[in-house]
Amino acid sequence: MIYLDNAATTFPKPEYVYEAMDEANRKYAFNAGRGSYQSARKATQLIDETKKQLLELVGLRNQGEVVITSSITIALNQIINGIDYTEGDNIYISPYEHNAVARVVHLIGKLKNVKIVYMPIDTETLEIDIEKLKYLFIKQPPKCVCCIHVSNVTGYILPVEEIFLAAKQYGAITILDTAQSLGLVEIDAKKMNADFIAFAGHKSLYGPFGVGGFITLGKVPLKEYIVGGTGSNSLNLEMPTGYPEKYESSSSNIVAIAGLNAALKDLDISSIYQHEKALIEYLVENLKDIPEVTMYIPPSDKHIGMVSLNISNYKADDVGMILDEDFDIAVRTGYHCCPYIHSYLKDIDSGGTVRVSVGRYTTKEEIVDFINVLKELLYN
Amino acid sequence: MIYLDNAATTFPKPEYVYEAMDEANRKYAFNAGRGSYQSARKATQLIDETKKQLLELVGLRNQGEVVITSSITIALNQIINGIDYTEGDNIYISPYEHNAVARVVHLIGKLKNVKIVYMPIDTETLEIDIEKLKYLFIKQPPKCVCCIHVSNVTGYILPVEEIFLAAKQYGAITILDTAQSLGLVEIDAKKMNADFIAFAGHKSLYGPFGVGGFITLGKVPLKEYIVGGTGSNSLNLEMPTGYPEKYESSSSNIVAIAGLNAALKDLDISSIYQHEKALIEYLVENLKDIPEVTMYIPPSDKHIGMVSLNISNYKADDVGMILDEDFDIAVRTGYHCCPYIHSYLKDIDSGGTVRVSVGRYTTKEEIVDFINVLKELLYN
Repeated sequence: MIYLDNAATTFPKPEYVYEAMDEANRKYAFNAGRGSYQSARKATQLIDETKKQLLELVGLRNQGEVVITSSITIALNQIINGIDYTEGDNIYISPYEHNAVARVVHLIGKLKNVKIVYMPIDTETLEIDIEKLKYLFIKQPPKCVCCIHVSNVTGYILPVEEIFLAAKQYGAITILDTAQSLGLVEIDAKKMNADFIAFAGHKSLYGPFGVGGFITLGKVPLKEYIVGGTGSNSLNLEMPTGYPEKYESSSSNIVAIAGLNAALKDLDISSIYQHEKALIEYLVENLKDIPEVTMYIPPSDKHIGMVSLNISNYKADDVGMILDEDFDIAVRTGYHCCPYIHSYLKDIDSGGTVRVSVGRYTTKEEIVDFINVLKELLYN
Repeated sequence: MIYLDNAATTFPKPEYVYEAMDEANRKYAFNAGRGSYQSARKATQLIDETKKQLLELVGLRNQGEVVITSSITIALNQIINGIDYTEGDNIYISPYEHNAVARVVHLIGKLKNVKIVYMPIDTETLEIDIEKLKYLFIKQPPKCVCCIHVSNVTGYILPVEEIFLAAKQYGAITILDTAQSLGLVEIDAKKMNADFIAFAGHKSLYGPFGVGGFITLGKVPLKEYIVGGTGSNSLNLEMPTGYPEKYESSSSNIVAIAGLNAALKDLDISSIYQHEKALIEYLVENLKDIPEVTMYIPPSDKHIGMVSLNISNYKADDVGMILDEDFDIAVRTGYHCCPYIHSYLKDIDSGGTVRVSVGRYTTKEEIVDFINVLKELLYN
């Protein structure tokens, strides 16, 4: 199989990730922090070490908090619902948001009577229009701004630092969704102006399913949203008040965390970025002159990880099916859990896009094969 | 190590659980249901098969729905928050509830102005007093009744069928927490009168961390609480309306599900029950005449899986530490995430209890060793 669905989940993971998970399963899959015996404490140490790795990954040392959850979806539900809204507040989101943000704010919009405002974009380049956004902020000041860092539909790298800097003029709470970016694009938490950096373990960090969370400097208070046992302060019906316990109910998935821990030990962001960049540029270069292929590509300096495309007279799903059945190539087709951006991409008649997404183990030969297959499909 | 903390998480898991997880990691750790290629569909099939296994485990065939989440805590948050409350509603819980229920209803109590009512218990036997409960139901009819099946503090098997039958006279919504019981105690969903049966994968089912959920006949509507991408109907900001998608946001943890799937293939509930029963009876028999040992034990026909105890003049935590450091025996000490029952157990001065919990791989020799160690600790 040629696997070109790395934006859904990276595959394969490094061998040492599998090994670390199997070892954790066999040697210390205990209930961390809840036991009074050595092996359970070892599990707790591994969690603490993994949190340190995550902080260092975004340039933090001896400061900041990490909350580990079972997925970025859970983390985003906790963060966005944890904010104290007042009727009439404005929540800004980009039109590139994934449903892990879009559906959460939509639900809050209904329940709390707050307004969801989409950031304006340039309809030609499909980039966020920062000047228009700043103007909108004046008229409707933001309570909260949620933004995806790298679009999971087009690979567009959003100007999140600028957006958050503008939002901070209004004291807005800023939330960054790095599902596609952490581990692929350098993030400096201090420069980012993000109050919350939500991450997925199983994508560009090359960890497994079952681990995600968020990083924060801890300056913005969050109410609890998901509650339960924390292995601490059991007699108290209130959640513990501090980080990370307040947001970490239920048993830790030590096996998944061990996988992420191993993955983070050998993650060379800059070399993976260069590798993916080269593959994507090669792909774009080789498809751009084929009239039957429509690509939805951002400016090249703001583009990483994937190419979304369509082929004249084909539905996206049909292309996916042919690639799978006839050529054993795995891509993702459809709307990619993004409700809003497709009206700008104008791809709804095609049923969304064919998304070709690469990873650190994707080879140039696989991209060459993919290009040849597309040509065969078109001209044979 | 002698591992006597199986109520926190069973350890070890069967060898084939580890193997299934490693195989899933290497062969089909794809984003199930979200791709249009064969390997992703294989992941989806495995999930469907696992749901069928779970339905069969509670006696359901060709009916019922299973929602898979990352933990029972997430499932209970979704269920209990998914109910439509009216100010003044009564939520009943047993005094044995774990914080995965107790803290959730406490939070709802504060936010929605509903009343939390604890089921009455006989202060001698510490059993639920069904007659008093029925009387309470008359005065304060239940909107919802949440009950743990087997106490994670004492191993008491609660009379949940009777409780739910009484609750159903008032049309109450009934929620069963089987964290300690599913896989150990036979459950017949149809006789149980439970609208929701919440389960943990990593305890008596012998699956791994990272998988839990709930089983339902689907008759009681639940609002969405945790939302996000479902890989379906992406353009719609509303969650899908049906089971299971409405409650299954985010990527499925196919590796954990593969582990649970393997575990369920070879789970002989009745023989594990008999094995644990024999170990617990032996333990009780051998400790009952030691005056320094106080055991908190339910009637023997309603008792499974664990013994909670204290030793005169020792704090529970100190016993745990000595067992760990001097004898390499792992038990759990403290309050076990149960906020309410300890005022009845009268163990607060000891800092909770020392909980000795067994599993399918616990041997009689280990229990003999444990008994000898306790005697050594007392008399040497």
